[in-house]
Amino acid sequence: MPTPHLPELLEFLRFPSISTQSENRQSMEDCAEWLATRLKLAGLKTQVHPTGGHPVVIARNTHLSTRKTVLIYGHYDVQPVDPIQEWESDPFEPVIRDGVIFARGATDNKGQIFAHICGVTDALREEGDLAVNLIFLIEGEEEIGSPHLGRFLEEHRDELACDIIAISDTGMVAPGTPTFTYALRGIAAMEVTVKGPSIDLHSGIYGGAVVNPATVAAKIAASFHDSDWRVTIPHFYDSVLPLQAWEKESWGNNVIAEKALWETSGAPELSGETGFTALERVWARPTAEINGIGGGYQGEGTKTVLPKEAFVKWTFRLVPGQNPEEILALAEAHVRQFEIPGVRLTIKRGHSGLPYLMDPMSPYGQAAQRALEKAFGKPTCLIREGGSIPIVETFKSILGADTLLLGLALPDCRAHAPGENFPIANFEIGIQLNRCLLKEIGS
Amino acid sequence: MPTPHLPELLEFLRFPSISTQSENRQSMEDCAEWLATRLKLAGLKTQVHPTGGHPVVIARNTHLSTRKTVLIYGHYDVQPVDPIQEWESDPFEPVIRDGVIFARGATDNKGQIFAHICGVTDALREEGDLAVNLIFLIEGEEEIGSPHLGRFLEEHRDELACDIIAISDTGMVAPGTPTFTYALRGIAAMEVTVKGPSIDLHSGIYGGAVVNPATVAAKIAASFHDSDWRVTIPHFYDSVLPLQAWEKESWGNNVIAEKALWETSGAPELSGETGFTALERVWARPTAEINGIGGGYQGEGTKTVLPKEAFVKWTFRLVPGQNPEEILALAEAHVRQFEIPGVRLTIKRGHSGLPYLMDPMSPYGQAAQRALEKAFGKPTCLIREGGSIPIVETFKSILGADTLLLGLALPDCRAHAPGENFPIANFEIGIQLNRCLLKEIGS
Repeated sequence: MPTPHLPELLEFLRFPSISTQSENRQSMEDCAEWLATRLKLAGLKTQVHPTGGHPVVIARNTHLSTRKTVLIYGHYDVQPVDPIQEWESDPFEPVIRDGVIFARGATDNKGQIFAHICGVTDALREEGDLAVNLIFLIEGEEEIGSPHLGRFLEEHRDELACDIIAISDTGMVAPGTPTFTYALRGIAAMEVTVKGPSIDLHSGIYGGAVVNPATVAAKIAASFHDSDWRVTIPHFYDSVLPLQAWEKESWGNNVIAEKALWETSGAPELSGETGFTALERVWARPTAEINGIGGGYQGEGTKTVLPKEAFVKWTFRLVPGQNPEEILALAEAHVRQFEIPGVRLTIKRGHSGLPYLMDPMSPYGQAAQRALEKAFGKPTCLIREGGSIPIVETFKSILGADTLLLGLALPDCRAHAPGENFPIANFEIGIQLNRCLLKEIGS
Repeated sequence: MPTPHLPELLEFLRFPSISTQSENRQSMEDCAEWLATRLKLAGLKTQVHPTGGHPVVIARNTHLSTRKTVLIYGHYDVQPVDPIQEWESDPFEPVIRDGVIFARGATDNKGQIFAHICGVTDALREEGDLAVNLIFLIEGEEEIGSPHLGRFLEEHRDELACDIIAISDTGMVAPGTPTFTYALRGIAAMEVTVKGPSIDLHSGIYGGAVVNPATVAAKIAASFHDSDWRVTIPHFYDSVLPLQAWEKESWGNNVIAEKALWETSGAPELSGETGFTALERVWARPTAEINGIGGGYQGEGTKTVLPKEAFVKWTFRLVPGQNPEEILALAEAHVRQFEIPGVRLTIKRGHSGLPYLMDPMSPYGQAAQRALEKAFGKPTCLIREGGSIPIVETFKSILGADTLLLGLALPDCRAHAPGENFPIANFEIGIQLNRCLLKEIGS
């Protein structure tokens, strides 16, 4: 029998809660209020906290000093939807095809956090109480790097004190395979704008006389990698922790994950830094990835302009040992070499987050593995993940607690891309996982 | 007393005759029909000729075998208007401020060709006939490289036979300075698309596993120039004709032109290929200029995608001695080096045109210089120009006639850019220049 919670998940998905776009501010607030109402109806004490940006929703049961305290984190904000023409249906009007929900945020992160909310709702209704003290912390700025969450945690440190944190915002190796992620890459964002002429110029009348900002932007962008796809920024790899032998061996056997990576990428082939497998490159090697590059004429055909400016946006993915601020300083020093006659550079640092590494064999790690095995009926697969959840490191430093990453996303769920989706089966198993997890930790 | 023709010029400027955009097809036809009506009213035998693309308008007086035949060429198509937000007024609703007309096409080329039409209109009304056999040939595809004009000239070779051609579609060194352009750069356009994944990917989940098409596009774009801003494509400079001593000397003294180039560019400084002055680089050195580069997220803030594709659009400006097809073949061979694992390249050749060089001391060259001196009351300045008018070389090869380039555009007329404009004074002097020119050639 399908979960009765599905219609409510679809309601949640209809909010266009894109945190990076200022025109979506009202939708963000409406979405936070909707969540709060939902959590109150489940029987939790709930509050919507304003921040300098988008609000944070907090909900808790009655805490007893005899029980462990679990904080479950999620986010209600989503990525932008462009290129919109590549969606088969409206990203904010969820459609179900063959048991899969298609909508922006379906997998990242509304579907996953809502599974936890439904698990708690069901447990409270059926059992009257939980085995643990519970705190839900659901923010609206994850996709823009959680700029206000650190301060919020510091200001609410006492009421958010907890023994362990759980997050479902990572991936599963394959459908039906319980997956426990014990490390994440960090992130650091940077944007460079190259400005030259005051207006777009005629490329015949001016071409040759002035430096073309798009060419300089391309030279900067090209300078970040050598022909082995190693990042060329001096000292970029200096503090990277090497892989453990058991990791190299375990990942080398994980042909399913490597195959899924290739199939879902749609790339002609997997290719990258020389000397590492694709899984190693994604899970344990840092990258310098162009997210966007632009300048001059973007339309059909030819326009003979010499553009007045061009930009490059990067995010670096960082691995345990690396520090985002140090990497941004190295990258900035590297880019400053391109301050040449005829152009002006503007370097803007964006959001950042530390990489994360925990011991999967710790007591809470083992409780999580037991919960996964009960919910899925299979042994747990231990992996790292290439994505970044910077707040995991923030939780560690402010609340002093480790985070269990119990992801429910499949390799083809298209997080951040057109056609994002989440299987109803994963939503349902997520509800069960929540119930198993709270019992395992509480026992 | 201002010319009574101004309101008609404004009507002409209101047509959004952007040849490169398919949605403007009807405006192109309306504009051609409007021109034809205007030429008929002047007393010329006029016809609108369909082509495979946008129509060509031909008009002529009654030809006598005793007179020289002059073909005056112009174009009614204009460049796209983006970035539209940088226009102070609607590009297709001309506004006059301080005696200057602001509109797309005001200077390139509607204002200039319409000055010739008005000169002929006035001469026919006041004098009943012209001193020459006249042919107006006004096309609608100049801004996209005149793809159908060559064939049109071949098919109408007999009726378009002429002794000399005149075009006002080039620049003046300074306001009030009559300027005769005896050489032009050629052009060759190329676009490269780099494709990788089938969709935009999450840069955390996939970053490192697959090659980033934007990085490859940047590497290609960056590879076209060395640190002296010399084009690195092998054999690119092999057939470039060296500058004459008198040219180097004359241009070295032309501080006004160099200063105007810098001031109107709005660039922090003039800078480019080592070993040449700015005027030499624009007038007599070839370039490889990025007109547009794009890929991935173009909006505000950060979007952590690994783009599925990226593009670079270039135009090469070529100098006497160089052949566009040869240069495109060299460039394509250079780009093919970047066909590396993980991406697919698509190379698309665009329009092209040969460079042009004529002798300014030939009899028609001297007639043109006399006409310029009469209209402006000053000695003529002899220059080359960095822009491309590929049909000048096409006229030479098909009709066998040289072209007199008698430009009326000022350095700050912003051809191809937001805020394109044309002074009413230049429009009026253009009308006089037309009358002087036809008399000098006819005498």
